[in-house]
Amino acid sequence: MSSSATNPACGILFGIGVGPGDPELVTLKAQRVLQSVPIICTPHSDTSRDSFALSIARQFIDTDRQELLRFGFPTDDAVAASRVWETAAETLAVRLKQGQDVAFITEGDPMLFSTFSYVLESIRSNHPEITVEIIPGVSSVMAAAARASLPLVTHGQRLAILPAVYGIDDLREAIANYDTIVLMKVNRVLLDALANLESLGLAGKGIYVRRATTEREQVVRDLQQLGEEDLDYFSLLIIKR
Amino acid sequence: MSSSATNPACGILFGIGVGPGDPELVTLKAQRVLQSVPIICTPHSDTSRDSFALSIARQFIDTDRQELLRFGFPTDDAVAASRVWETAAETLAVRLKQGQDVAFITEGDPMLFSTFSYVLESIRSNHPEITVEIIPGVSSVMAAAARASLPLVTHGQRLAILPAVYGIDDLREAIANYDTIVLMKVNRVLLDALANLESLGLAGKGIYVRRATTEREQVVRDLQQLGEEDLDYFSLLIIKR
Repeated sequence: MSSSATNPACGILFGIGVGPGDPELVTLKAQRVLQSVPIICTPHSDTSRDSFALSIARQFIDTDRQELLRFGFPTDDAVAASRVWETAAETLAVRLKQGQDVAFITEGDPMLFSTFSYVLESIRSNHPEITVEIIPGVSSVMAAAARASLPLVTHGQRLAILPAVYGIDDLREAIANYDTIVLMKVNRVLLDALANLESLGLAGKGIYVRRATTEREQVVRDLQQLGEEDLDYFSLLIIKR
Repeated sequence: MSSSATNPACGILFGIGVGPGDPELVTLKAQRVLQSVPIICTPHSDTSRDSFALSIARQFIDTDRQELLRFGFPTDDAVAASRVWETAAETLAVRLKQGQDVAFITEGDPMLFSTFSYVLESIRSNHPEITVEIIPGVSSVMAAAARASLPLVTHGQRLAILPAVYGIDDLREAIANYDTIVLMKVNRVLLDALANLESLGLAGKGIYVRRATTEREQVVRDLQQLGEEDLDYFSLLIIKR
C-alpha cells in the first residue's frame, strides 16, 4: 500500500490502534509489532500524567529495551496542536531515517477521531519516502455497543457518528435521516441537548457509555440520571430511534 | 452487563467479531475464547461453501475437540432469513441450557451490520436467562481506511455509514451534511450512482476497497475503473468531500 517512492533504508512508521481500553482487545498484530519495535510514541494531553493509549499498551512494552517517546498536546487550541504535531512528526522522522521502526499508538482506531491522522499527514507531506503501515483497532463505538448489548445497525440501516459539539438542530437532522446516531465525547452542550430528547420523540432511546471495557466503565440507560460528574472525554451516547 | 435474571448453570453465548480478514487482526480475547469454547457457530450464505468469518477464525479452532455448527441463510429474503435465525437461536439455546458455551463468530464487528444481532434478539426474547457476552472486533470500515491510508474523520468531523442500497438523492443528502461517507457493499445501483459523483462535485474523492487485509484485497482510487467484476459483498466505498 505504500507509495513506490518509499525508502527501504528508512524505518517503518506504524500507526497502531490499541482498542477501547481492555488490553485483551488489542489485536495479535498490534501485540506483535508493539513487542518488536524499538520506539513507541504516545501522545498525551496537557492535563493527564499518562496517556490512555499507553495505559492500554503498557503490558506489551518492555521499557528496558524499548524507548518511550511522549508528546504532550493542547486539547483545546487547534493551531497550537497542529504545531505540536509538526514537531512530533519531525522528531519521529529523524528516528525513522536512522532506520528505526516507530509505533505511534492511539486508543481505539487510528483512522477514527485520532491524533495519528495529523502525524500521518505531516509525515506524508514532508517525508513521502517513509513507509507507513496502519494497524486498525477496535473502536470505542463498537466496544460501547457491545457492552450496552445494543446492535448499532442491521441490514439496510444507516449510522451517523458525530462529534458531540453540536446542538439540537444537528441532532434533529441526524435523527430524521439515520437509524442510529453515535455522539462522541459527551459534554455540557450535549447534556443540555438531551433535555430535548423527549420533544424529539426519543425519550428512553439513548444509552450513555463511558470508558467501555475498562474498570471505570459505566453504562447508563436513563439519561436523566446523567450529570456534570459523568462528563468524560472517553464517553459516548448511542441513540437508536 | 448481563441481566440479573441470568442462569449460571447455562453456558455463555459469545458474539465474537473476528475482524476484517487478516487472522492477525483478531483480538487476544477473541483468540482466547475461540480456543476454549466447545462449540463454534458460523453463519454462511446459500451460495458460499465456507463462511468468511470461519475462514478467518479457522486457525484458532481445533475441530478434533471443538464442534462446528453451521447455519445457512438466504441473503435476499428477509422473512425466510428471520425464520432461519429463530431456528438457529433455538438450536443454540438447547446447547447453552446444557451448560455448554457457544461462540457465534462474525466477520468484522458483531454490532455493525452483523447477523449476530438477529440471534441476539431471538435469544434475549425467548431465553432471557442466558448470559450473552459480546466481544467487539475490528470493523471492515476501519480496516479499509487503514489500507487506503485515509483518515475517516478527525476532530469535529461527521461520519455517515450507509448500506449501499440507496440512489443519488440519498447520497446528496449525506454529502450535504457529512464530511465522510462510507457506503457498504458496492453493488450495481451504487456503481450507477457513482457516475454522478462529478455532478456532485466529488470526482476523484472516492476510494473503493474490497476485502481489506485479505489476499484478495483491492484498493481502487479511480472509480471509473470499477466494473461489474468488482462488485463484492465485502467491499465498500469511502467518499471524503
